[in-house]
Amino acid sequence: MNRIKIGIVGYGNLGKGVEIAIRYNPDMELSAIFTRRDPSTIRHLSENVPVHSYDEIKNFKGKIDVMVLCGGSATDLYVQAPEMAKLFHTVDSFDTHAKVNEYFSLVDDVATPSQHVSIVSVGWDPGVFSINRLYNNAILPRGTDYTFWGKGVSQGHSDAIKRVEGVKKAKQYTIPVEDAVARVRQGDDPEFTTREKHLRHCYVVAEEGADLTRIEAEIKTMPHYFADYDTIVEFISDEELEKDHHKMPHGGFVIRSGKTGVEGAHKQLIEYSLKLDSNPEFTASVLVAYARAAFRLGQSADYGTKTVFDIPPALLSPLGAEELRARFL
Amino acid sequence: MNRIKIGIVGYGNLGKGVEIAIRYNPDMELSAIFTRRDPSTIRHLSENVPVHSYDEIKNFKGKIDVMVLCGGSATDLYVQAPEMAKLFHTVDSFDTHAKVNEYFSLVDDVATPSQHVSIVSVGWDPGVFSINRLYNNAILPRGTDYTFWGKGVSQGHSDAIKRVEGVKKAKQYTIPVEDAVARVRQGDDPEFTTREKHLRHCYVVAEEGADLTRIEAEIKTMPHYFADYDTIVEFISDEELEKDHHKMPHGGFVIRSGKTGVEGAHKQLIEYSLKLDSNPEFTASVLVAYARAAFRLGQSADYGTKTVFDIPPALLSPLGAEELRARFL
Repeated sequence: MNRIKIGIVGYGNLGKGVEIAIRYNPDMELSAIFTRRDPSTIRHLSENVPVHSYDEIKNFKGKIDVMVLCGGSATDLYVQAPEMAKLFHTVDSFDTHAKVNEYFSLVDDVATPSQHVSIVSVGWDPGVFSINRLYNNAILPRGTDYTFWGKGVSQGHSDAIKRVEGVKKAKQYTIPVEDAVARVRQGDDPEFTTREKHLRHCYVVAEEGADLTRIEAEIKTMPHYFADYDTIVEFISDEELEKDHHKMPHGGFVIRSGKTGVEGAHKQLIEYSLKLDSNPEFTASVLVAYARAAFRLGQSADYGTKTVFDIPPALLSPLGAEELRARFL
Repeated sequence: MNRIKIGIVGYGNLGKGVEIAIRYNPDMELSAIFTRRDPSTIRHLSENVPVHSYDEIKNFKGKIDVMVLCGGSATDLYVQAPEMAKLFHTVDSFDTHAKVNEYFSLVDDVATPSQHVSIVSVGWDPGVFSINRLYNNAILPRGTDYTFWGKGVSQGHSDAIKRVEGVKKAKQYTIPVEDAVARVRQGDDPEFTTREKHLRHCYVVAEEGADLTRIEAEIKTMPHYFADYDTIVEFISDEELEKDHHKMPHGGFVIRSGKTGVEGAHKQLIEYSLKLDSNPEFTASVLVAYARAAFRLGQSADYGTKTVFDIPPALLSPLGAEELRARFL
């Protein structure tokens, strides 16, 4: 059996997640990991898989079927995705919602002429949450969409806290307001302010002797990140942070509260929810399933840049069409 | 603007649902309703839409883009789907899970050579529940699947009760056992017997003077339908049945409880749920969205029989690719 040869570009939490997820998919194998760091400093799990410098990657053209790009959206992917789409089929988790179309064009300018498949913005949001929003709106054209995130760690907000003077370490949890979720599930179609949907719980390790009152006030009034939310700031010790908050849980809900029938007489509620012990491992699992789709699209010469919206569900599964119908339909 | 011309074949609850759902989709119009009954006896909602006999349907070849087949799976669709696939693109809600591949072949033997698109087994189960089972298994190859149905009216079980001697009318609700759902959501991966997952609540109107004890016993011991379940039989008056049980609510949950990470260290839970005031109107809404997909596949000459697994989500929406990315990704 010819297994799909996967390369990983970038070896952080997401790259590690992809490395492990490939082991759950017997039709795939990990060929190599590429890093911009010194490869000799990388301690990876798969002893028989080589780690190479990002600069060597062009030598692997034709030897790797799909590159899974595990860099960050802010800077890495803008550079790496077009470079990689010239040489390989790619899958990435670009997640800056506001720039999705700009990024799509940037990658497509390379992928289509070089006859590669690039599936961008894969993961859970954007990703499987997006798929649900699309299906829900197509099925129930009249209705209201709700997305709640959490309970889960937000890296961006944790980093924002760390920039406050006197903060040594921090973890921020985004938490959906239970009462808000309950009202949506009842089909009331409520309108919410930002504050009414989510609250933010911050665990902060302060530098010795730091002014805790000032830190708390600075966090709570920080524009964009915290000012519009009810925010809890809790100071804990370094040991507590390491012991109780080293995991990366996340999740959330996509809900469409719709109406059907004459004069919208009937309420119809669709809810999709995720409860994830490990955010990066789940994202990695989605990326790996879409790597299979990218490979297959490449085989049928269906080149160009795609999103999860363009991929038939069947392409994600290793099973054939008849077996899929028998098992899952 | 050229609207997609839809025909409805069969005017029961599902056909009525499709008639209304089309009004929610401005890019479509209802061209005609076809029935095997005497057309003059049909009282439909859309006064300006003609009702024709099923026998006249061949005269509409080229005049209708997609036929939405609203007959039952047991007998109607086996005959009508191949007849229709010879003349039109079709969408149907064939829902006999065990015969899906047999039915698929039957329709495809006609659809492919006659250059039509037939999307079969569209609705919620089979349908959007199936899509979720497929995505979930592709993303989390290690895990356990659960599907719960209800609370909702099961037509098949209601009909089975009516066949018991002395029963005048009946409505049967399938109800998921709350404790079972709770255990699945905790990620315990429990194994259930049939009895542990669902219970069955029967509202029965008996003929005057009938032996209620015998009726209750006959229902509760009926093989396939009730014997393997905890079943509640409640006798009510005809008036109560008409007043309190004339609606057709339904719903359910598709859950995958999966594991990721080294040695499956992390639990990952995906849940998709529906809470429907009207089962036939929701199914109709899904059919109409897939009618759009059938029309588009036809336009790009991508003929043959398909299921929801083969359809990229984007084909269901009236919006263009760039707008979909901006709004839903």
